[in-house]
Amino acid sequence: MIKPIEWKNDSIVLIDQRELPGRLKYLNCNTVEKLARAIETLAVRGAPLIGIAGAYGLALGVRHSSKATIHKDFTTAFDRVKITRPTAVNLFWALERMKKTFDAINKKGGALPEIKEALLSEARKIHTEDAATCSKIGKYGSALIKPGSRLLTHCNSGALATGGIGTALGVIFTAFKQGKVKMVYADETRPLLQGARLTAWELRQNKVPATLICDNMAAFLMAQGRIDCVIVGADRIALNGDFANKIGTYGVAMAAKCHKIPFYVAAPLSTFDFKIKTGKQIPIEQRKPEEVRSFGKSVTAPLDVDVYNPSFDVTPAKLVTAFITEKGVVKPPFEKSIPALENKK
Amino acid sequence: MIKPIEWKNDSIVLIDQRELPGRLKYLNCNTVEKLARAIETLAVRGAPLIGIAGAYGLALGVRHSSKATIHKDFTTAFDRVKITRPTAVNLFWALERMKKTFDAINKKGGALPEIKEALLSEARKIHTEDAATCSKIGKYGSALIKPGSRLLTHCNSGALATGGIGTALGVIFTAFKQGKVKMVYADETRPLLQGARLTAWELRQNKVPATLICDNMAAFLMAQGRIDCVIVGADRIALNGDFANKIGTYGVAMAAKCHKIPFYVAAPLSTFDFKIKTGKQIPIEQRKPEEVRSFGKSVTAPLDVDVYNPSFDVTPAKLVTAFITEKGVVKPPFEKSIPALENKK
Repeated sequence: MIKPIEWKNDSIVLIDQRELPGRLKYLNCNTVEKLARAIETLAVRGAPLIGIAGAYGLALGVRHSSKATIHKDFTTAFDRVKITRPTAVNLFWALERMKKTFDAINKKGGALPEIKEALLSEARKIHTEDAATCSKIGKYGSALIKPGSRLLTHCNSGALATGGIGTALGVIFTAFKQGKVKMVYADETRPLLQGARLTAWELRQNKVPATLICDNMAAFLMAQGRIDCVIVGADRIALNGDFANKIGTYGVAMAAKCHKIPFYVAAPLSTFDFKIKTGKQIPIEQRKPEEVRSFGKSVTAPLDVDVYNPSFDVTPAKLVTAFITEKGVVKPPFEKSIPALENKK
Repeated sequence: MIKPIEWKNDSIVLIDQRELPGRLKYLNCNTVEKLARAIETLAVRGAPLIGIAGAYGLALGVRHSSKATIHKDFTTAFDRVKITRPTAVNLFWALERMKKTFDAINKKGGALPEIKEALLSEARKIHTEDAATCSKIGKYGSALIKPGSRLLTHCNSGALATGGIGTALGVIFTAFKQGKVKMVYADETRPLLQGARLTAWELRQNKVPATLICDNMAAFLMAQGRIDCVIVGADRIALNGDFANKIGTYGVAMAAKCHKIPFYVAAPLSTFDFKIKTGKQIPIEQRKPEEVRSFGKSVTAPLDVDVYNPSFDVTPAKLVTAFITEKGVVKPPFEKSIPALENKK
């Protein structure tokens, strides 16, 4: 399996996902600033993976600290990584977990090497736990997939987005191994084409039958009866079941509802934000106009045209058939089933 | 106003729309084959404009004919142009009109120069009539637009798609001159980006406030209450009101319906196919995988991934608020109002 992130020689080594599928290039982040920029520029992306990257980032931030500087270094790293991207809650969840670890070991009066080791150990734990979580999501989710299924997914929620086999793609990979997947349609996912560049690549690497489509073709496929099930990941899920995911997810969910096609959201508990009641409270990242006006080296629109470029949208809970988590499948009414998850976190 | 097509010195001179917005380059078609390839490769596109181009193509096909070859030359040109693109019905309508003219002048025993002149004259007439038609569509359509409107359109149905100011964009330009347009959101329209390259360009050329979005952002804008009205063109309209238009139109129409936003289709009578009952009978052109696997000059997906690339989709009549034609606004029930149009054609 692909390893999108590794801790090596006091550095965070990332696959530079901006270069895929053309080149498998690795990025060596030996400073917090380099890691933060890798997150901001989407060299590393995917809600669970951003959480893992953020956790390693805090371990990195204190790696060369002295007893005198470690508190300031930790806070500086924490504050820097925290502002990289606003929507996926996994980042904040991971940072808070690292902070708890840091506070606990300090409270116990841990020595400098112990503090550093505790942070690295916690980051590794977040990483390996996510791998196990993905496998469980794959197990629970694949039970929902019927033999001969033609599945549709949006953006990338695979090994490149997580510490394991992926969330939505993890379900697809698991169902594929069970012989139940006839075809996976991958939305290309404009503007940054994570579907074309990453999902299509992961599917083909794993020999899964895959068909790439433009985002605007999904509804027409559904109208022709060619999609049996939609499965996507998530960046933040509210208490009522509204959820943020890559821009375009809302349109896909609406089309699935109109065609009576099951619409599943696969995500770990770390993607649930138990502090917010509805999707209206999810901050939506706005990105640069250049992402829409151009691609690669091609400028494809007049430079004086305005651009609206939200990185995510919010899909209302009523369009979701079920959430697939490492604790099982979560069904409506979400106002009850989601709050009940908090104790399991 | 932009002139996307002109007859000059026994040639058809086209704006090469593949080069926009980067370059305003003209393409000189002095043979039917060159014109046919220009249509096939989308150097010239847009349902009404393809009709006009096809008509000029038949005039061109006999331009150097002798009395002995003119019948064969006409048939050869007719058969070649006819197979360029299958979905937009305007092409077949224009070719049939040219054939009627050809048959009539032959029946009358017209001399060789008379026949040639009759064909060129008919092509010019189709061209100038379309300009007048666009203006009428603009007039009728703009009456439906409320002051302060934020409009959404998909693909390009402007001066670059017609012989005049455009169909859907013609309505927008007219409403803009009336001071009623606050903002036009243009779907970029993957895979060939006619929205980003052509619509955004036309809007800015005419100083209309324009915001470019990826196709997958339209539904989210609607959810935020930021779209008052959707207006698109069409490539073929069936008797029951189902219609084919650029891929992605169906998803936009569905989203508009879900958000209770008026959805208008602006098209001349030549876009109505009175021979077919429903949208199921409309042939949908499938285009090359490379259009989806790459973006501009960049290859953006693994080369071993399959691609589904229909150039059009079919939107069911129930999602259409009204059709805007040169004969007025056509409202439901379409099963009655559309057949009644045939006598006006």
